[in-house]
Amino acid sequence: MPQLRLALNQIDSQVGNIAANADSVVHWTRHSAEQGAHLVAFPEMMLTGYPVEDLALRTSFVEASRTALRELAERLAAEGFGELPVVVGYLDRTEQAAPRLGRPAGSPENAAAVLYGGKVVLRFAKHHLPNYGVFDEFRYFVPGDTQPVVRVRGVDVALAICEDLWQEGGRVPATRSAGAGLLISVNASPYERNKDDQRLELVRKRAQEAGCTLAYLAMIGGQDELVFDGDSIVVGADGEVIARAPQFSEGCVLVDLDLPAARADAPEGLVDDGLRIDRVILSEEPVEPYEPVVAGGYADRLDDDEEVYDALVVGLRAYVRKNGFRSVLIGLSGGIDSALVAAIACDAIGAQNVYGVSMPSKYSSDHSKGDASELADRTGLNFRTVPIEPMFDAYMGSLGLTGLAEENLQSRLRGTMLMAVSNQEGHIVLAPGNKSELAVGYSTLYGDSVGAYGPIKDVYKTDVFRLARYRNRAAAERGETPPIPENSIVKPPSAELRPGQVDTDSLPDYPVLDAILELYVDRDQGIDAIVEAGFDRALVAKTLRMVDTAEYKRRQYPPGTKISAKGFGKDRRLPITNGWREHA
Amino acid sequence: MPQLRLALNQIDSQVGNIAANADSVVHWTRHSAEQGAHLVAFPEMMLTGYPVEDLALRTSFVEASRTALRELAERLAAEGFGELPVVVGYLDRTEQAAPRLGRPAGSPENAAAVLYGGKVVLRFAKHHLPNYGVFDEFRYFVPGDTQPVVRVRGVDVALAICEDLWQEGGRVPATRSAGAGLLISVNASPYERNKDDQRLELVRKRAQEAGCTLAYLAMIGGQDELVFDGDSIVVGADGEVIARAPQFSEGCVLVDLDLPAARADAPEGLVDDGLRIDRVILSEEPVEPYEPVVAGGYADRLDDDEEVYDALVVGLRAYVRKNGFRSVLIGLSGGIDSALVAAIACDAIGAQNVYGVSMPSKYSSDHSKGDASELADRTGLNFRTVPIEPMFDAYMGSLGLTGLAEENLQSRLRGTMLMAVSNQEGHIVLAPGNKSELAVGYSTLYGDSVGAYGPIKDVYKTDVFRLARYRNRAAAERGETPPIPENSIVKPPSAELRPGQVDTDSLPDYPVLDAILELYVDRDQGIDAIVEAGFDRALVAKTLRMVDTAEYKRRQYPPGTKISAKGFGKDRRLPITNGWREHA
Repeated sequence: MPQLRLALNQIDSQVGNIAANADSVVHWTRHSAEQGAHLVAFPEMMLTGYPVEDLALRTSFVEASRTALRELAERLAAEGFGELPVVVGYLDRTEQAAPRLGRPAGSPENAAAVLYGGKVVLRFAKHHLPNYGVFDEFRYFVPGDTQPVVRVRGVDVALAICEDLWQEGGRVPATRSAGAGLLISVNASPYERNKDDQRLELVRKRAQEAGCTLAYLAMIGGQDELVFDGDSIVVGADGEVIARAPQFSEGCVLVDLDLPAARADAPEGLVDDGLRIDRVILSEEPVEPYEPVVAGGYADRLDDDEEVYDALVVGLRAYVRKNGFRSVLIGLSGGIDSALVAAIACDAIGAQNVYGVSMPSKYSSDHSKGDASELADRTGLNFRTVPIEPMFDAYMGSLGLTGLAEENLQSRLRGTMLMAVSNQEGHIVLAPGNKSELAVGYSTLYGDSVGAYGPIKDVYKTDVFRLARYRNRAAAERGETPPIPENSIVKPPSAELRPGQVDTDSLPDYPVLDAILELYVDRDQGIDAIVEAGFDRALVAKTLRMVDTAEYKRRQYPPGTKISAKGFGKDRRLPITNGWREHA
Repeated sequence: MPQLRLALNQIDSQVGNIAANADSVVHWTRHSAEQGAHLVAFPEMMLTGYPVEDLALRTSFVEASRTALRELAERLAAEGFGELPVVVGYLDRTEQAAPRLGRPAGSPENAAAVLYGGKVVLRFAKHHLPNYGVFDEFRYFVPGDTQPVVRVRGVDVALAICEDLWQEGGRVPATRSAGAGLLISVNASPYERNKDDQRLELVRKRAQEAGCTLAYLAMIGGQDELVFDGDSIVVGADGEVIARAPQFSEGCVLVDLDLPAARADAPEGLVDDGLRIDRVILSEEPVEPYEPVVAGGYADRLDDDEEVYDALVVGLRAYVRKNGFRSVLIGLSGGIDSALVAAIACDAIGAQNVYGVSMPSKYSSDHSKGDASELADRTGLNFRTVPIEPMFDAYMGSLGLTGLAEENLQSRLRGTMLMAVSNQEGHIVLAPGNKSELAVGYSTLYGDSVGAYGPIKDVYKTDVFRLARYRNRAAAERGETPPIPENSIVKPPSAELRPGQVDTDSLPDYPVLDAILELYVDRDQGIDAIVEAGFDRALVAKTLRMVDTAEYKRRQYPPGTKISAKGFGKDRRLPITNGWREHA
């Protein structure tokens, strides 16, 4: 059987930054060529970034992508890689783009192309378009109707894009019908907890259905709320794993494959699901047999806490860098949420770029101030203290506030303080809210919700504790100073906006709260099902009432790393002026 | 030809508030019966409200809608309306709801039913699902595959839902194939400027295609950012308008129609687009000939300014009421934006429920303070003054801010002030930002962007001036006091955050700015096309750069009434960490 050395470039790209993404393709193609690759692949929509959202509907952007693709083909050839086929995702459009109501303007396509000999020799569009969860691809794209097959050194390589593998029918059976010896799927599949296991099973199943080796190339990095976790996989036709790449790590996965030679009677025409085979022959001559071979390897899997923590780090780092910032600013209360956010930030961009401000009020306890300062000592982040009492007194003197208005005022004074420092010094502010708080609206709009990014917005409070303990444990195992003060972990959570206040004055205990929230928010269960799962009806009703009425606050909360299948954001869209009460 | 008195109830409903919506159906059915109607119709998804968004994916909500529909049928019969067929939109699901990736969870349907004799006698789901602009119906619904026809007093009445009329094929030709004598389309079609003309032409064309009288029932009211403008239309098979209802006005459109008797050989089975005729016979006997007949009437059309102004009023009123509030709070700067917002608010909920606060700083001009106070005098809204100097001094004493940080601070102190008063007194805060400012990011996050709702968020500054003049003119014509001080209209716009500041320090003149923005934001034109339209390239580049980098601020701006086909909100979705620069 012919050999082929495949280079799967598990890398990041930035939406819209076509020039930088093209540079990256050239850089990694050079690296792949240096490693002796015969076929090089890049993730879904590498050239434009993913997801491009409404940029897909902008003609000038689509044309920029098309032009950049042609220029990239020429540039690769000019730099000496003309004989090396490169598969790269980009944004295209159909040539038959007659405007029609219900069809995306300009008929854009989520496309990929094979670049070879200075030209675009084959192009195709994603066939199955996802339109659920965080995906809106019916809004943006028209589906592709070909089954691309490219012959490389005597091997027929079928191609597919992401959802083409997830849904039944289409390019997987078409690959078998086309008699291909290898199926490469290029992806930008967002991270979710435990999705890696699901993905592995999927890839194994599809390889068997396709009847050939399947190379699943994943993206790594972050784009706004989405994190891409890498974890590229190569599986044989028998479903056995040949190679598995590390999670959350940028790099080139190199693997040598023994693949069947192309059939002399390779099929043409229509195959499964109305797909028409689009076949291009680049090179018939197999590679001379060689050794040693690169086995691909099987990267160690991260344990669950490490995986989630790394996702939060990668998401934050991408957001800060892609927005052109170098430093972040965090209000440090001494509590566990801001401590965990600070630890993540230090891991993402370095403690020297993390600025913390303690903003005590007359209700702040001594231990809070001490815990904030200890956090700074442990991590080495930049720390200062600015009391809010003078501002508080000025407002109270003018307005004479009481109760909730007085509590919220303190939080908003801190938000204003952070934004003032941000404007003056150029850091972006991180919002410390967790998913439990956000779900029930236990936060102050324009107060602790202030920020450009909420790193733990999709992390329940019980997981905040878990991740804090994990991070400290990991530090201890490496012989480093655990970043988070033990007291921030063990003391009862409190907003400290009035004397003696603790979270449990207003909320159920977090383990109970989070269990109810997971059923309601993540699993869309109704009150009856939640009560049946073993919770007190009155408590459930009270909790759901809080969730039902907090949509407005959530709408104005900044974006944050998504780590679950269903958080708050574009995968959960509810009306604000909403009369539905689950508990009624 | 048999006669039929049709009652089209052009009314509002609230998403999720199923009990109240059901009450409303009973109320208006009683009214229709008292007016002698033979057939009664309600808008798309009347029972659940529209759009339900992700509530469609929640089993308990879908079941609540289904149950409420059955109970509504029984209740109508119990109240004596069993013999009166009622068409009502609701949320349903297919019975074949096998979970499958890519299919909305639970297979929900945007459905309508005919209630008669205490039962649901016919049900069907929307066939064409819109998934563009503000619509995401592929995310939420599975399409219907029947062509419903109900025989009422010897007349065959075909039914359709909204998009079924907008897209080619499907229920319009199927109505002709089914030989129906009347087509009723129930709608929840969001308002856009000038859409009424487009809608009229569509309805006339579709009536001719269907070969029968077409009754187009529109919703009126507001749901979050969407406004529904009413404007129900009845058109003969020849395309001539029989009746046209008022815009922005809730009520029952009553019209007597002469309609062809049902064909003896009425077709069955599959017709156009794979639709299967689903026919139900309620009553064969034609209504005894009667007179006088109700002609339907043709309501006067609003002129363009009045139409937009009314949309803003209806949208704000719906938002306040559906969120359970009675009063609003506005920061009054003396400028035209807050003055127009105050005028809209007074029209929406009454001046006695509108609270204004002037929050002068040391940079506030005397005329600003005077203009704010004059606005209060003219409208009768509740007015107070709270200077921000003490709070400003407290921050400056602690932080020593300069430049933009000092400017933004003032705006944020005002935002905090408004929220404090809101928390203390229970009003919801209105954000005064206009579309021009939002587009270029000329606003302070957590400052003037603070609020629950932005009434003029989709109104360009040049239109703000136009609407202010219109509102004053309309008052003068009615012999009332024009609400907006002349000086707020004629003085140069300024944020007054530093001495002598005017908007044109940072921005092009508004007529030029707005023309560029309309091409870029609303029409998706690229820089070359905009320059070709007659604008200076450097100016265009500077403007687009501002728009490209303001996405983050827009993301955290509160919702606001939508009056254009493309504003900022769910119909324009862009990444934040976006490297695309149109001007590069």
